[in-house]
Order: sequence, then C-alpha cells, then structure tokens
Amino acid sequence: MSLVVMGTVAFDAIETPFGKTDKIVGGAGTFAALSASFLYDQVKLVGVIGEDFGDDNLQIITSKGVDVEGIQIIEGGKSFFWAGKYHNDMNSRDTITTELNVLENFDPIIPESYQDCEFLLLGNATPQVQMTTLNRLKNKPKLVVLDTMNFWMDIAMDDLKAVLKHVDVLTINDGEARQLSGEYSLVKAAAVILEMGPKYLIIKKGEHGALLFGEGQIFSAPALPLAEVFDPTGAGDAFAGGFIGYLAKVKTINFTNMKNAVVYGSALASFCVEKFGTERLQTLTHEEIEARLKAFVSLAKFDI
Amino acid sequence: MSLVVMGTVAFDAIETPFGKTDKIVGGAGTFAALSASFLYDQVKLVGVIGEDFGDDNLQIITSKGVDVEGIQIIEGGKSFFWAGKYHNDMNSRDTITTELNVLENFDPIIPESYQDCEFLLLGNATPQVQMTTLNRLKNKPKLVVLDTMNFWMDIAMDDLKAVLKHVDVLTINDGEARQLSGEYSLVKAAAVILEMGPKYLIIKKGEHGALLFGEGQIFSAPALPLAEVFDPTGAGDAFAGGFIGYLAKVKTINFTNMKNAVVYGSALASFCVEKFGTERLQTLTHEEIEARLKAFVSLAKFDI
Repeated sequence: MSLVVMGTVAFDAIETPFGKTDKIVGGAGTFAALSASFLYDQVKLVGVIGEDFGDDNLQIITSKGVDVEGIQIIEGGKSFFWAGKYHNDMNSRDTITTELNVLENFDPIIPESYQDCEFLLLGNATPQVQMTTLNRLKNKPKLVVLDTMNFWMDIAMDDLKAVLKHVDVLTINDGEARQLSGEYSLVKAAAVILEMGPKYLIIKKGEHGALLFGEGQIFSAPALPLAEVFDPTGAGDAFAGGFIGYLAKVKTINFTNMKNAVVYGSALASFCVEKFGTERLQTLTHEEIEARLKAFVSLAKFDI
Repeated sequence: MSLVVMGTVAFDAIETPFGKTDKIVGGAGTFAALSASFLYDQVKLVGVIGEDFGDDNLQIITSKGVDVEGIQIIEGGKSFFWAGKYHNDMNSRDTITTELNVLENFDPIIPESYQDCEFLLLGNATPQVQMTTLNRLKNKPKLVVLDTMNFWMDIAMDDLKAVLKHVDVLTINDGEARQLSGEYSLVKAAAVILEMGPKYLIIKKGEHGALLFGEGQIFSAPALPLAEVFDPTGAGDAFAGGFIGYLAKVKTINFTNMKNAVVYGSALASFCVEKFGTERLQTLTHEEIEARLKAFVSLAKFDI
C-alpha cells in the first residue's frame, strides 16, 4: 500500500525581503512528497523533469525515501522553472518568469509498482493531468486529495469541475473558495463546493490557519504565529503532503483524524516557510515535528 | 465589587448590504456593558448622552441590570452620532457622518457608588478621557482593560502611550498592532507592545479570530464561521465586554482564565453581528450563550 503524490518537480528562483536564490529545487510535488515522507514511509512521486535537473537535485527527494520511479526524465528537455518575488507583507507575490518546458506536454505515467496506491494526492497541476493520473490507477484509491489554484479556475473551470466529482478532499485558499463557489461567506462557499463532489473541503488561510468542512462539521485550525516568514513558497504543498501523510499513517478516514491531519499539515507548512525552498524540510527531524505539534496543542487549547 | 465600563453611549445609523437603519442605540460603552451583563451582575457604565437620548433608549441598557448612574445627561445637548456604510465584504466601511456633540467636552464622572470598581474596561475613547477615568478611581482596579483604535494612534499617540503604561490588557486589531509597534509580524508587534505597559495583548482579527499574548505564551482563538455577518458594528466592544465580564465572574487572573475570557468575548461578538446594532444582545439568552460556547469548543478541539 502506498501514498502517491502527483505534482510538479521544478526549479524555482525566489526573492523575498530576506534575500534571493538562484535556481533551487521546488515544485508542488517535491514539497508535498518531502512533507509526507516524515509521516509515512511509502511515498511515491509522479512528475516530469528535464535532463537539466541532475542527480544531486533528485537526491534531495530520494534521500527522504521517496520513490521516484514515476518521475519521467525527458531527454534534452528542461525542467519547469518559476521565478517570483514576494512583497514585504509576504502574502502577495509577483511572478517574474514561468517556463513550462517539459511540463507543457506532461503525460503522467503510473509505474506498475505504484498501482498499490491507497492514498492519492493530486498536486496543483492542470485539471486534465490530474484527471489522467486518477484514470490511470487501476483501483480507486481509498482517499483522493486535490490541490489546485485560481489560475485553473480562470482558464479551465470545466475541467476542474469534472475532476472534482472524483475527489474526496479539496484544498484551496479563501480567495479560491470564493471564486469557485461565487459566494463571499466561507460557510456558504463550503456548502456550494461540497455539492461539487468533495466530501471534505479545506480552506487554507495562510497566517490565519485553516478551516476544515465536512460531515456537517467545521474545524478551525490555528496557524503558528511566526516572528519571521522567510519564504512562503511550497507552504501549501507541504501542508497537503503533511495532511495526507498523516492520514496514510493512521489509515482511518473520519472527521477526528481529518482534524489531526490538518494540524500535522499546518505543522509541516510552518517549518517549510522558515528557510528558502526545500531547505528546512531537508534538515527537519521527527523530534522537531513532535515539539511543533505540542506548540500547536498549546496554542489552541482552552478548557471551557 | 463591580465592573466599570467607560465608553460612548450614542446613536448609530448603519447601512449594510442587508439593509439600513435610522438612528439606533449604539456606542462602545453600550455594546460592552450589555455584553458584560450576561456574565457578571455588577456592571456599571460611565458615559455621556444628550437630552435627545430618551428614557426608552436608556432602558435598553438598564433592562440588563447595568447601572447608569455614571451616565451624564447634558441638558439641551445632543448625543454622539455616527453614521456609516459597510462594503460588501463587511470588513471595511465608510464613515458618512460623525457628530461628536456632547462627547466633545466629555469629562467622565465616577459616582461614589462606582468606587468599588475591581475590573475596569476603558472602552474606545480619547486616551485623555481614558486616563482621567482611571485617575478618578480612588483604588487601582485589579484589572484594567483598554480598547482603542487607529484614529487615536494617528492623532494622540503620546497620550495613548501614556495611558498604556497603566493598563493590564490591551485589545486592538491586527492593523492597529502593526501601527502601534511599527512591526509587520504580529509576534514581533506583540513583543514591542508588551514593553509599553500591558501585561497581555489581544489582537482581534475579525473573521480570523483573535490572538492572546502574555506570560510568554500565545493563544489562538477561532472565530465562529458565520453564513451571514449582518452588521459588524459593536462586535469589538461586545468582545471586550464579554472578555472582562468573564474575568470579573471568575475573579482570578491567569493565562488559563484569559484564554477562556477570549472565547467568551468571541462568543458574545458572534451574536452581536447577527442583527443590527444592539438588537441581538437585547434578546440573547444564557442558554444561547451556552450553546454557542459548545460550538466554539467543537470548532477548535483536536486530540493530538
């Protein structure tokens, strides 16, 4: 049994008020798989890279035990590249460059060894690629989590709605929930979105935490107040990876476990933003995760 | 022993996407005292009104057992009047009219019967009036809570900083915390503000809940996700009233009780926004408050 993550494996060049990087390893699939690897040991990644990616960079992923058989390496191709600059408030950013490169014709391949997939994370990608990935699994996974963004709502809303019919959990931010539903109130937005297919909806609110809707209940998870957010890149993907990684570990799907999964996802995301790119996830230890979870408990606990 | 609330008692005319009102009873002191009255039975209000306020309106306050001996009625004077219009997102508003009227020369009088004050809420008002109120109490209260807003930071920062030295708890919103501290990160902002005098800081984030800082700890309280926010007027005051009302009831000041107080304040605020002005607080029952508190527990609880 395994947890399959489909998502981009890419280069990012990032500028924040704290500094800037050259091309470093990034991509939704990378962040999500690394994050999940701390909670579950059978994480398998589906994606595509160019020859320029290099073994050293791939090793950042494999060193955490993530299976990369499902990552196609396109001969002579160049990896997806994104360059962006964050504003001072760290909540908004400008895209400087987007080079799709090998991502343009990405046709996800599911190796035979991935067909034991029980938990599937469809990372942020075109809804068509997300649908193809799902269709190429011979058995329907126990849980399908989909992450997406406003960009796909702008240019491929019908495709997105089609894949949503087959999804158990959708993770989006508050602006995206409003766009997808046409409702300003997040409570009303959630009601509309839960009619579109997903049984659970997670609305990510960055520094304000996350809301989980499902089974007629709502859970509000806090975000850890941080003195510095060094680089927000990948935080949403690390959240999704931690979320599904926890569920793959505990196996049982119910609202109680979903709530814990949101807290695990939030904890992983809180580490992700402490350094550039995947840097913090590379050095992260289980002891640090345990301590951070205790901080979340202390942050949210009251006794009425 | 009593809980004294100093704050405006006023008329508001409100327009929201749901409708508009003529002049209705409002004011920070009104909302805070009404809110506190559900948790503590010795609430005493200090303020000023004109002859136009009328007994019927005053009865909205006294009907909840709030002592109004400290409300001066200025002969021939007109009550403070504010008219505002909320935008569609309900998070921003335009002030249409501000008529200070009797508030312009407000000199707070503390009746002898109020000198048993143990808990003091200095509602949003000029820092000078807040300071005068504090100075006119013969004994230093056990707990002083101060609410203020960006307006006073713009025009009376020095006065505000002077009164903050004598305050135990400061309640402001996130933008105001940034303005007061000069720090964008709320963690850093809190550290700066806690050096200014207050032992505890509450940062109100509206639909995103509230953060409590103090004793080297942080508590993150959720806001109840609401399908409709009918009228946000007075929510911050109802929060402050519920907060100090709970502490007056339990009497012991520590971080555990402070956390609960934040949740009680949030619960009262969540009712306040359900109808125009004080309408919802007028009909509110203790059973409804108990049920709402359970909703907050369910909303925030997880078991890691």
